[in-house]
Amino acid sequence: MSISIVGSVAFDTLHSPEGTKEKILGGSAVYAAIAASYFTFPAVIGVVGEDFHAEKLELLQARNIDILDIQNKSGKTFHWTGSYLEDINSAKTVSTEIGVLGDFHPILNEKNAERKILFLANNDPTAQLEAVLQSNSEWIAMDTMNLWITLKREEVIRVAQKVQFLFINDAELRMLANHYNLIQAAKAVFEEVPSLKYLILKRGEHGASLFTKDDYFTIGAFPLELVKDPTGAGDSFAGSFLGHLADKEITMESLKEALLLGTVTSSFTVEEFGPERLLEISREQIESRKEQLIKYLSV
Amino acid sequence: MSISIVGSVAFDTLHSPEGTKEKILGGSAVYAAIAASYFTFPAVIGVVGEDFHAEKLELLQARNIDILDIQNKSGKTFHWTGSYLEDINSAKTVSTEIGVLGDFHPILNEKNAERKILFLANNDPTAQLEAVLQSNSEWIAMDTMNLWITLKREEVIRVAQKVQFLFINDAELRMLANHYNLIQAAKAVFEEVPSLKYLILKRGEHGASLFTKDDYFTIGAFPLELVKDPTGAGDSFAGSFLGHLADKEITMESLKEALLLGTVTSSFTVEEFGPERLLEISREQIESRKEQLIKYLSV
Repeated sequence: MSISIVGSVAFDTLHSPEGTKEKILGGSAVYAAIAASYFTFPAVIGVVGEDFHAEKLELLQARNIDILDIQNKSGKTFHWTGSYLEDINSAKTVSTEIGVLGDFHPILNEKNAERKILFLANNDPTAQLEAVLQSNSEWIAMDTMNLWITLKREEVIRVAQKVQFLFINDAELRMLANHYNLIQAAKAVFEEVPSLKYLILKRGEHGASLFTKDDYFTIGAFPLELVKDPTGAGDSFAGSFLGHLADKEITMESLKEALLLGTVTSSFTVEEFGPERLLEISREQIESRKEQLIKYLSV
Repeated sequence: MSISIVGSVAFDTLHSPEGTKEKILGGSAVYAAIAASYFTFPAVIGVVGEDFHAEKLELLQARNIDILDIQNKSGKTFHWTGSYLEDINSAKTVSTEIGVLGDFHPILNEKNAERKILFLANNDPTAQLEAVLQSNSEWIAMDTMNLWITLKREEVIRVAQKVQFLFINDAELRMLANHYNLIQAAKAVFEEVPSLKYLILKRGEHGASLFTKDDYFTIGAFPLELVKDPTGAGDSFAGSFLGHLADKEITMESLKEALLLGTVTSSFTVEEFGPERLLEISREQIESRKEQLIKYLSV
């Protein structure tokens, strides 16, 4: 059972209308693993440089996150600087110091290759594909971003052909499918990638939807008055969604529950800078906000 | 019981990626009244010029829409030309020939002043206020648009202070409240307009939400693969929403049903140019699509 998560482990420098944070813990795999750790035992497959402090890894280990496949390389850890000063909903990359992530080749140990779910958190599709080829997971899920769709669309599609779950936001879906209409765009992706079973559309403040080839389910977001820092929202959404499924049979019912949990978990993430809030909540707080959300949604 | 609808009666020229239509029937009051006519007996309060053809009014009468308070003035009917060529979700005004609407002073006959609901469909807030001052309706609802918020914000607020229902889309709500966060924006409007009871947020392809001072309810949109012409979507949303309430007690339950019906009715509107599709559907089709939507939403 459980889940292997391949992706970035990073330092983030963040500028938002609520302030600035310098070189805090970040990365797609980190957010996804912390979120998943509320539901199952995740492993992170990634790479860090010499400047990555041991206590950051201990922080993950303390949550029962397996870090054996986090490689230590000579060089600097990936460092992303992003700004939400213009638009709180959409990150603008100020600078990227790729460091050791530039030559990242994921290596999955035997245990990590056998976990029930492999999640390819947002990362270069070349590295995503390398991970897929080592995996015997029953279910594979992927996330991606506008950068990879623009630079490496063919490789993104090649990875998508190996997965059953695709997480994508509305702007990325429009870009990937080259259709403005989101329903048509989802349909076009299913046509281009026949092996895909579930497309999870992240609508940000408007909610999230689950598409299958012949079914559809949609929910609103948890209403939040303050978004301090949306970094990691998508990663923790997917981590929580898949973490819930790691020990469940995958049915329409468990998928709906996963969508609710992903929505609610990421609603905590954005309330503070970095993974701060995500690290301090309890499973009970997630459940309680989920019950509140169900009330807001019940027709 | 029933509903009085004050607003524009117009000719629209529409450019969308699906084609162009010249001078077809339009106007906020027309769309709202047709939508409401599936649920109750609406009256339209408006003005037309000498170029407005009698058969257009007969088309409304045939649906039991009361047109006694549509004034006939010498001059031209309001003619709006809009384009969705750049963005199918957001109308760009190409030209406005204001005609007789420029000097529109709504006059409500005794019956229209006494109907259960008065709906101030999108129009100059000066005319909206004139209508309110003649009305004895138990419930008053208003719609508005970015133009009036920009040009006449104070008057929009003055009208809002007379109503219990405000229909507004996400961009307009941000503009009206001067808050980017929609939840904070809704709260700010309730603070500025303490008399307001219900704020209905139209999120377009992402759905719609109902805010009260201390409650919240949100639903996704009906998934549509083709949007031919979004003109009148907001008007028919509100018309259907309020039409449903015209003969009901207003409770959280009837409001939720209204939100579903508004969503579904407007999903038909956008499938064809102008009010064409809205005119041809049946109550059964609305109900059937509503049942389908409930399936997509049920957690």
